[in-house]
Amino acid sequence: MPSETLLDRYKAVRAFSEKICEPLLPEDFVIQSMPDASPAKWHLAHTSWFYETFLLKPHQAEYHSPHPQYDFLFNSYYNTIGERHCRPKRGLISRPTVEDTYAYRAYVDEHMTLLLTEADGETLAVLEPLLTLGLHHEQQHQELMVTDIKHLFFDNPLCPVYLPRRDLPAAPVPALEWIGFDEGIQEIGWAGEGFSFDNELPRHKEYLQPYALGSRLVTNGEYLKFIESGGYAQPEWWLSEGWNVVQSAGWAAPLCWWDRKGEWMEFTLAGMAPLDLDAPACHVSYFEADAYARWAGARLATEAEWEAASVTVPLCGNFAESGRFHPAALSSGDAKAGKLSQMFGDVWEWTRSQYTPYPGYASPPGALGEYNGKFMCNQFVLRGGSCATSHSHMRSTYRNFFPPDARWQFTGIRLAKDR
Amino acid sequence: MPSETLLDRYKAVRAFSEKICEPLLPEDFVIQSMPDASPAKWHLAHTSWFYETFLLKPHQAEYHSPHPQYDFLFNSYYNTIGERHCRPKRGLISRPTVEDTYAYRAYVDEHMTLLLTEADGETLAVLEPLLTLGLHHEQQHQELMVTDIKHLFFDNPLCPVYLPRRDLPAAPVPALEWIGFDEGIQEIGWAGEGFSFDNELPRHKEYLQPYALGSRLVTNGEYLKFIESGGYAQPEWWLSEGWNVVQSAGWAAPLCWWDRKGEWMEFTLAGMAPLDLDAPACHVSYFEADAYARWAGARLATEAEWEAASVTVPLCGNFAESGRFHPAALSSGDAKAGKLSQMFGDVWEWTRSQYTPYPGYASPPGALGEYNGKFMCNQFVLRGGSCATSHSHMRSTYRNFFPPDARWQFTGIRLAKDR
Amino acid sequence: MPSETLLDRYKAVRAFSEKICEPLLPEDFVIQSMPDASPAKWHLAHTSWFYETFLLKPHQAEYHSPHPQYDFLFNSYYNTIGERHCRPKRGLISRPTVEDTYAYRAYVDEHMTLLLTEADGETLAVLEPLLTLGLHHEQQHQELMVTDIKHLFFDNPLCPVYLPRRDLPAAPVPALEWIGFDEGIQEIGWAGEGFSFDNELPRHKEYLQPYALGSRLVTNGEYLKFIESGGYAQPEWWLSEGWNVVQSAGWAAPLCWWDRKGEWMEFTLAGMAPLDLDAPACHVSYFEADAYARWAGARLATEAEWEAASVTVPLCGNFAESGRFHPAALSSGDAKAGKLSQMFGDVWEWTRSQYTPYPGYASPPGALGEYNGKFMCNQFVLRGGSCATSHSHMRSTYRNFFPPDARWQFTGIRLAKDR
Amino acid sequence: MPSETLLDRYKAVRAFSEKICEPLLPEDFVIQSMPDASPAKWHLAHTSWFYETFLLKPHQAEYHSPHPQYDFLFNSYYNTIGERHCRPKRGLISRPTVEDTYAYRAYVDEHMTLLLTEADGETLAVLEPLLTLGLHHEQQHQELMVTDIKHLFFDNPLCPVYLPRRDLPAAPVPALEWIGFDEGIQEIGWAGEGFSFDNELPRHKEYLQPYALGSRLVTNGEYLKFIESGGYAQPEWWLSEGWNVVQSAGWAAPLCWWDRKGEWMEFTLAGMAPLDLDAPACHVSYFEADAYARWAGARLATEAEWEAASVTVPLCGNFAESGRFHPAALSSGDAKAGKLSQMFGDVWEWTRSQYTPYPGYASPPGALGEYNGKFMCNQFVLRGGSCATSHSHMRSTYRNFFPPDARWQFTGIRLAKDR
Repeated sequence: MPSETLLDRYKAVRAFSEKICEPLLPEDFVIQSMPDASPAKWHLAHTSWFYETFLLKPHQAEYHSPHPQYDFLFNSYYNTIGERHCRPKRGLISRPTVEDTYAYRAYVDEHMTLLLTEADGETLAVLEPLLTLGLHHEQQHQELMVTDIKHLFFDNPLCPVYLPRRDLPAAPVPALEWIGFDEGIQEIGWAGEGFSFDNELPRHKEYLQPYALGSRLVTNGEYLKFIESGGYAQPEWWLSEGWNVVQSAGWAAPLCWWDRKGEWMEFTLAGMAPLDLDAPACHVSYFEADAYARWAGARLATEAEWEAASVTVPLCGNFAESGRFHPAALSSGDAKAGKLSQMFGDVWEWTRSQYTPYPGYASPPGALGEYNGKFMCNQFVLRGGSCATSHSHMRSTYRNFFPPDARWQFTGIRLAKDR
Repeated sequence: MPSETLLDRYKAVRAFSEKICEPLLPEDFVIQSMPDASPAKWHLAHTSWFYETFLLKPHQAEYHSPHPQYDFLFNSYYNTIGERHCRPKRGLISRPTVEDTYAYRAYVDEHMTLLLTEADGETLAVLEPLLTLGLHHEQQHQELMVTDIKHLFFDNPLCPVYLPRRDLPAAPVPALEWIGFDEGIQEIGWAGEGFSFDNELPRHKEYLQPYALGSRLVTNGEYLKFIESGGYAQPEWWLSEGWNVVQSAGWAAPLCWWDRKGEWMEFTLAGMAPLDLDAPACHVSYFEADAYARWAGARLATEAEWEAASVTVPLCGNFAESGRFHPAALSSGDAKAGKLSQMFGDVWEWTRSQYTPYPGYASPPGALGEYNGKFMCNQFVLRGGSCATSHSHMRSTYRNFFPPDARWQFTGIRLAKDR
Repeated sequence: MPSETLLDRYKAVRAFSEKICEPLLPEDFVIQSMPDASPAKWHLAHTSWFYETFLLKPHQAEYHSPHPQYDFLFNSYYNTIGERHCRPKRGLISRPTVEDTYAYRAYVDEHMTLLLTEADGETLAVLEPLLTLGLHHEQQHQELMVTDIKHLFFDNPLCPVYLPRRDLPAAPVPALEWIGFDEGIQEIGWAGEGFSFDNELPRHKEYLQPYALGSRLVTNGEYLKFIESGGYAQPEWWLSEGWNVVQSAGWAAPLCWWDRKGEWMEFTLAGMAPLDLDAPACHVSYFEADAYARWAGARLATEAEWEAASVTVPLCGNFAESGRFHPAALSSGDAKAGKLSQMFGDVWEWTRSQYTPYPGYASPPGALGEYNGKFMCNQFVLRGGSCATSHSHMRSTYRNFFPPDARWQFTGIRLAKDR
Repeated sequence: MPSETLLDRYKAVRAFSEKICEPLLPEDFVIQSMPDASPAKWHLAHTSWFYETFLLKPHQAEYHSPHPQYDFLFNSYYNTIGERHCRPKRGLISRPTVEDTYAYRAYVDEHMTLLLTEADGETLAVLEPLLTLGLHHEQQHQELMVTDIKHLFFDNPLCPVYLPRRDLPAAPVPALEWIGFDEGIQEIGWAGEGFSFDNELPRHKEYLQPYALGSRLVTNGEYLKFIESGGYAQPEWWLSEGWNVVQSAGWAAPLCWWDRKGEWMEFTLAGMAPLDLDAPACHVSYFEADAYARWAGARLATEAEWEAASVTVPLCGNFAESGRFHPAALSSGDAKAGKLSQMFGDVWEWTRSQYTPYPGYASPPGALGEYNGKFMCNQFVLRGGSCATSHSHMRSTYRNFFPPDARWQFTGIRLAKDR
């Protein structure tokens, strides 16, 4: 790939991070609303640190960081790189300011431009995979920026508004169909020329029993029936650990739902709004997705089932590029009988697969080996991307993962069952 | 099965629980040394409560419990049955005393004897699966009694002794061989007439890539090399969550190991003793097993790999029936070239498989549906049984499970690798 | 004091500790029901360790402890003596058993008898103050044994009974009078020949404003009116820190009270019983005593006010020697108009004085200097002794102290006000 | 007092709050660096809320708050006023922004100006005490703003600088003298016409034993000797609770001290600087002040001793008006033989007096009764003001109070002893 193309892609991804931050005021960039979230200015700096650490320092002889402490402050979790700032303290750092952070980005961009422009073909061949990883890394953080901002604003009694509300034309949601798939050996995982994360490798055979997937996502209206039938008070639907969380945290609905004297409201990036019963249920934990499925007489899919099914439909949907940043109701017109809808975009779909290495998986050597492999424990795999994921970042083999109690991502439910 | 045989099996299992408690003094029965453990008298009562709840109350019209609060105190985790005593408070209950608890057992035994003796064939057919489940349930608690007592005694600066020490004749441990297995579809899970737990069902096909297992368990001597090479101070071997535990809990060796001024000692049920370098490494968490395997250039097996391999060797080994309650070194004489050794007994072998439902799994209706299914989250599967497991309780399809930081069970390491 | 008299006093105090334990079964001796409490067998051993450490080891050349670890296990809080077992782990130690503990006591008694019998006059003069301190120390632990056993039994859903119930003849409680005291300089603190703790020294002058004390203790019936008027839901009566505890711990009544479907019950050492409205309110924290007083338009006394008033009445009341171990209602016959009643025994009376050193106070050198002085922080002073205090242990200058949220002691309320 | 004078005083105090914030960037206003601290913009808003709540709403008929949620967000601890935002979440609120907050201040100022300008004499007489309280309240928050900013900047690895460094001319510190005071009755507490807080009332008699105070504050150099002699590793100097904190929090020096490879540095609002050995020791907890005094063979003064002594010297010193915001070394020239120095300003002086009500104290009715009285528990009294206290806010009877482990205020040590 020629250096101009690489540079264009670099600039496009970098620009999108800043576009996400456009509606923010300086105060909004600073706060870490919970240990799992990070301040927006930390995301902006950390993604720059990534290029600095893995491209500029090794490949640009004269490069030095603008501040000796940035390496300490903006290393997320790479033990191999050195000491780092304690994660839960990311919100205690008023400096570097937002302006300083943008200056840091500009500094890195300037050096990256130089690096890419001046590199010969041989060097470019070395840089290209690192740069591509850096860009996908930044796209992952773009999604986290959106969800972390939503969490911050949701936590504020003033309910700030991030973007104007855009109502979609209402149309009845089509009935749920079951789309069946046959028993047999399937090849799962990435193969081919383009980019994938190491955790999608190697492509390998799995034996699937006959199964069916729900033709579309579970809607808010359907999930509300689970609530109204007493689902959050009945231990029989829940994993033991999930039931403990329901009781200790007092969960009674998905995150962002608010029962305003009998009228269900939902906090969105466009502010507090009446709950859209036709939109996909969102901000549910694995525990809730699993409990809902059991209550509905179904189950969640395994990630292999999901992946094998996903190749039957085109990779398109409601992604970050639309700028909507909220799941959208499926209109009858968009659904096709006997076909899967909403497989990509809208909400990440919880699978029942715990996050484990594929047969033959080996994490790469060095610091980048810490990217994925060390998190393969006590997490569940999610598939398909969300309204905060970039379309250019998605693949049918993409494995996202979160602990089973995480709710602040755009996460939802597709039902599955044995045939 | 005729009632006499059932009754004989019942009596045999019940007697073994009490045999395990023979070395205990009344004070030893009372304490809960950590939230995961339970007092011995609680185990004795809870296993009796199980028969009371699932056999006597439904099938013996006139039966009533000796105390109205026993149902509250001795229900472990069955939400469907009703309210129950908070698990971490099991050690705050001096009454019922040990004597009261044995009286409760005798009372339940008397009524069970009557129930089994008087039942007609039709009733026996109903009782037999419940009774068999109750017996396997009690055998599971027998293993927990042994490990909970060991944990209690280990926590006491006086290092109490549970049983006399029995030294085995020393013999050189054979070198580790790699035993290879071919790629292909394997049937995994229980099928047949005898008993299994629901989580071993249904038998189903899995596709395995070519793999090899270590011919024997990792020894204390081998594990010590990992320690001496700095393994507990090097994040590169560890899962992220494991590394957090190592640092926050200050782990520097397996549980029960003690560095007495440069000489490694090990706490056993026969008291504190010099570490036996030839015996299988024991009391390691999943995190440690996984880190050791990575350091050794290998990995842990999946449970399917383990199960497929296990059928090549007979189900025998160092089990609870021996009364040794400690893993034993493999003598060269017992090992056969090209064959797996120590697959059963000695220590539970951590697999890299997180505990998930088999394809087509459905938990049974009612309270017994809470037995296994609701724990399928954030646990890892262990295989093969230990020196505290009864041989009569073991199967090659048996799935034990614990969270990845658990160390107080007899848990150890068998290496695996891709071929 | 001749050695026989000392020995007699020693034997009497030692015997009373064992008398308190007579109703206990071995299981009851083992448990630590909360971090503030200790197992009965720990109290039995620790009080013996005290003589061992401060009398036998320094003054009996050949003395050695029966076990090298007892010094570690039974040192309560003397940093100067050496390392010690972590306090919250006292309930995790099944050995030494109860029998071993009594053997330890007998061993110490035997050596103490020898020491006292063989000592010459000069040695006795050295031993006497240490022995007297040891005896008062053991009497303090006797009170803790009673309250720790009560807490343990209260925590058990089976509500064990420690002693048979003894009902007292009912008689109307006399109306509360205000007994006035004049302004002026008062001498406070111990002076004279007998024993006192160091914290009662030196006797010194304080200037008191005119004040009045309630003629008797606040009764359960009076306290119940505070509850029924909504006192636990109204922040205006509470200290800020107390209100936090009320809300986080869900306090709605004194410890040991139980609202059985509208009928108030009280857990006593004689089991669960209907609340005696005429008996002194008991098991209240400082926060509750202070809130009640504010609600009642009064306040608590300072310790100087209490002490100055207490010398007007004889030192007698409902003490441990009666074996009742429960506060008793004041009968009209026992109260004298214009006189203070119930100043001693029944319940410790919370004062509004935080526990600080008297002017000129100096803690003694060495380990015994750790006895009192280092606790002079964040505690409130209580006066007068309780039904679990020995009469022979009490003085009008005696300063007991507990943190303001402690409730498991026999603690109650006497009102005071400015004149 | 005429309305112009009141208004002038109002404007002066309001202006000083904003002057303190002048060096801050928007990001600095947002963060709560620990639960005890508050964001600067919260202080700015809360002090405005105070006038709104206690002056504008009751006395300006048409007044309404600019936002219905401000009452919820900016009520600090007045239960009587209504529900309020949870204190530890003050740093999770990016909106209202800094600009919004200043607009809120301007809005309140405008209405306050109107209120004071238009009020007749009778109304002014009612408003004056409320306004005066509001001004002193704001001055208290001004000090907290300074210390909270310092804590925030100290927590940042970049060590931001709040103000330029101003070095003072060095001069040898005079030797410590003991200034003696006689035994007898002293009148303590406020009396007279001006303002005092309710906790300084009523003036009353106390009897003091003969005592002496150190002529000046303990210096960094003196405190360093305590550190170098092993003071933080020797339990004998410490209160029991203090020793627990030393061990669990790993304290080894005052807050803001930093041992840079053997060279002691100190974080100041002018950045990191070499430790000034002659300046008063600062940022010590009560535990450290008390331990230092014991190590030095002295003790801390009672608040009555301090107050009785303080009237012998004029109320002047290093206060907030100087804008230095750091304690200053005493130059020999400023000290007078036989006289107390540094009694006011520089650092708050820990006394050994726990914070209790004076005899005859009664908190006022209504919400303002929550100002002081409900905090009289588990706090120690400090006297004399600091470099962050306004001189116009100080009195010799002023009682400040903090829990014994608090260190982020400008708190220091003056020794006392019995004569």
